[in-house]
Amino acid sequence: MIVELISVGTELLMGNTVNTNAAYLAAACADLGYTLYHQAVVGDNVGRLRDQLVLSSERADIVILTGGLGPTQDDLTRETVADFLGWPLRPNEEVRAAIASYFKRSGAKTVVDSIWKQTLVPETAQILPNTNGTAPGLICESEKCTCILLPGPPNELHPMFELSVKPYLKSKNPYLFSSRMIKICGIGESVVEEQIKDLIDEQSNPTIAPYAKSGEVHLRVTAKAADEEEAERLLTPVVEKITERLAPHIFTTDEQVSLEQTLIEEMSERGLTLTTVESCSGGRLSARLINVSGASAVLQQGLVTYSNESKSRLVGVDPLTLAKYGAVSAQVAEMMAIGGREQHGTDYALAITGIAGPDGGTAEKPVGLVYIACASVQGVTVKKHQFNGNRDKVRDYATVFAMVLLRNELQRLY
Amino acid sequence: MIVELISVGTELLMGNTVNTNAAYLAAACADLGYTLYHQAVVGDNVGRLRDQLVLSSERADIVILTGGLGPTQDDLTRETVADFLGWPLRPNEEVRAAIASYFKRSGAKTVVDSIWKQTLVPETAQILPNTNGTAPGLICESEKCTCILLPGPPNELHPMFELSVKPYLKSKNPYLFSSRMIKICGIGESVVEEQIKDLIDEQSNPTIAPYAKSGEVHLRVTAKAADEEEAERLLTPVVEKITERLAPHIFTTDEQVSLEQTLIEEMSERGLTLTTVESCSGGRLSARLINVSGASAVLQQGLVTYSNESKSRLVGVDPLTLAKYGAVSAQVAEMMAIGGREQHGTDYALAITGIAGPDGGTAEKPVGLVYIACASVQGVTVKKHQFNGNRDKVRDYATVFAMVLLRNELQRLY
Repeated sequence: MIVELISVGTELLMGNTVNTNAAYLAAACADLGYTLYHQAVVGDNVGRLRDQLVLSSERADIVILTGGLGPTQDDLTRETVADFLGWPLRPNEEVRAAIASYFKRSGAKTVVDSIWKQTLVPETAQILPNTNGTAPGLICESEKCTCILLPGPPNELHPMFELSVKPYLKSKNPYLFSSRMIKICGIGESVVEEQIKDLIDEQSNPTIAPYAKSGEVHLRVTAKAADEEEAERLLTPVVEKITERLAPHIFTTDEQVSLEQTLIEEMSERGLTLTTVESCSGGRLSARLINVSGASAVLQQGLVTYSNESKSRLVGVDPLTLAKYGAVSAQVAEMMAIGGREQHGTDYALAITGIAGPDGGTAEKPVGLVYIACASVQGVTVKKHQFNGNRDKVRDYATVFAMVLLRNELQRLY
Repeated sequence: MIVELISVGTELLMGNTVNTNAAYLAAACADLGYTLYHQAVVGDNVGRLRDQLVLSSERADIVILTGGLGPTQDDLTRETVADFLGWPLRPNEEVRAAIASYFKRSGAKTVVDSIWKQTLVPETAQILPNTNGTAPGLICESEKCTCILLPGPPNELHPMFELSVKPYLKSKNPYLFSSRMIKICGIGESVVEEQIKDLIDEQSNPTIAPYAKSGEVHLRVTAKAADEEEAERLLTPVVEKITERLAPHIFTTDEQVSLEQTLIEEMSERGLTLTTVESCSGGRLSARLINVSGASAVLQQGLVTYSNESKSRLVGVDPLTLAKYGAVSAQVAEMMAIGGREQHGTDYALAITGIAGPDGGTAEKPVGLVYIACASVQGVTVKKHQFNGNRDKVRDYATVFAMVLLRNELQRLY
């Protein structure tokens, strides 16, 4: 079963709004076993929306349209679809009652007349209630194709999809797509691919798709099956083979889990505490770690020792060492980590010092040079990196590779 | 001149990645005076990409394709466009040298063979350098249409667009769209709109478009003109009127300048230093401030006092105050700022403590409650905020409103 998405709205077309709805719907449809080949964005324009509908309905079994269901003049999706299907619009009492009740609940004193335009729906359409707004969704099953019309605002779209569209799509598709995510850090995409190239090439079900993120590679393994049991049978051997080859670099096989979450959970379970000591990354490492709810048990403090003076005062970096080797050096990184751990009383300390650019680079110490150190009861490990990219990317890489170092150290000791 | 966007990538099609590139490119093209009617997303599939190219090239003068330029097997955009145009691919020495230099800079020891696939480009294409990666961009001007091929990763796409594509698109469009950006902080979008409603309504050239960002409102004033001189003549009186009405809240009229940059520059000029003391924002404030090149003259240190113990040890918050009022209180915010300033010897200190959620909220102190304090030689100012949204958004708002408070304090004293 093929689904195609049409996002309607001039604000999307002109780039004023990022199209998060398309990603949300595509991922949900893929999970339900539907095949997607195309997504389209068109403005609030009857002619172009109609042309897109003609094209999409030829290619897909189900076309999901979002946006353009509201009360204003430029909301034309309902009218255009009804016209395309040859279904007249008629006032619907059930919809009118739902809208009236919505306004009553929200305590609105006055209701603009244009709102009632939304009560016009095709008689044969299935009406989908809107728990967070006034425009109802519609499922129009016709011989041309099935059109599903959903509101544009994500807070209206998401509950409507979960409540009404998902059960409908489930009932229409005999197949199920089940996928597993393998998240890898510390090695690049091309290295990962080379190590499992034979698996990627020989697999058609399940498929293996790599995605690169800064410092991480994610592998999605997806099986098409009649039921969960068959999916499991298809997925397990492939996931096992990948795990065998890439084991030391895999930090999670849970789609929802981030690298920072893995670290916080591992440390939290073992009762370990952490201090971060950052220079060029400026707090980005601590900010990422506390993205994890529950980080407070692990991260006791973060120190952004940006000036040399603060490196000495807060984590005891020897001013002579600073003068001799410079702030961006293995020696200073090491002292930052040791001082962070000892002076602030945590089990681990993770330190970053580097040259994020765009200025400050020299032939000897170019922009992108970053030293990362991790101190623990076992001593201190320092890694030298040369990252490529702008200031933002260098800092992002430094943050990710600091987490990778911490993960390796935790693995080594436990 | 009509532009159409084709985003290539199975990760976009399947919803694993949100298509931010399309929004970025659409907004940039609209600013340059181009018309957009369609955006499309297709997977890494030769047949469907080719079909989309046929369709898009019939409708548009310029087709911009993003993604699928990388080294892996599923990167097929370059090959498909070359085949569509009937242009053979040939190894290009200039591209080879650029890739080799990229790897040399990054200190890579081994380079996988597949990388060199990226040196194959059509002879007649204009090559766009990639400052943050290996895949070059391409401009292919043919009779069918002009195809512009850009890499998918935003950190490669953005600089390439700014550096190479923007000047190209400017040179091809007879009209010129010139715009000025007015950036405002500390008041909401609806308040801004109310104060300049008459100007928005009466203007058709230039147009005034407000964009709300967390804690900031940006007004873009855009004139369509034959040349820069005419644009200037149209823009100046409107910008002056807006500035008159909103002056105290405008922090810059330079598109490239961020709120953090304004602060760092203002403080740097006056020789003022700063300490940040963060709890719920976890380092996000310091990380944002050091986004500004030259921040080291101002930000001496950042402290993430995440545990209560660290609040007392690092910035001297009285444990009795913590016990009596709780870590999220005006009293603790005040002590964090005062302690940050006095114990770490800077002219200013900026402190944030709050409940970012999703847990930890109570009826009395709900999720989103944030106290922000600014200490200076004049004393300390504390602001209470109740922000709406998820953990990420609360922390983002807290960071922006801390900067707004610092800006107001700086303005009050100087």
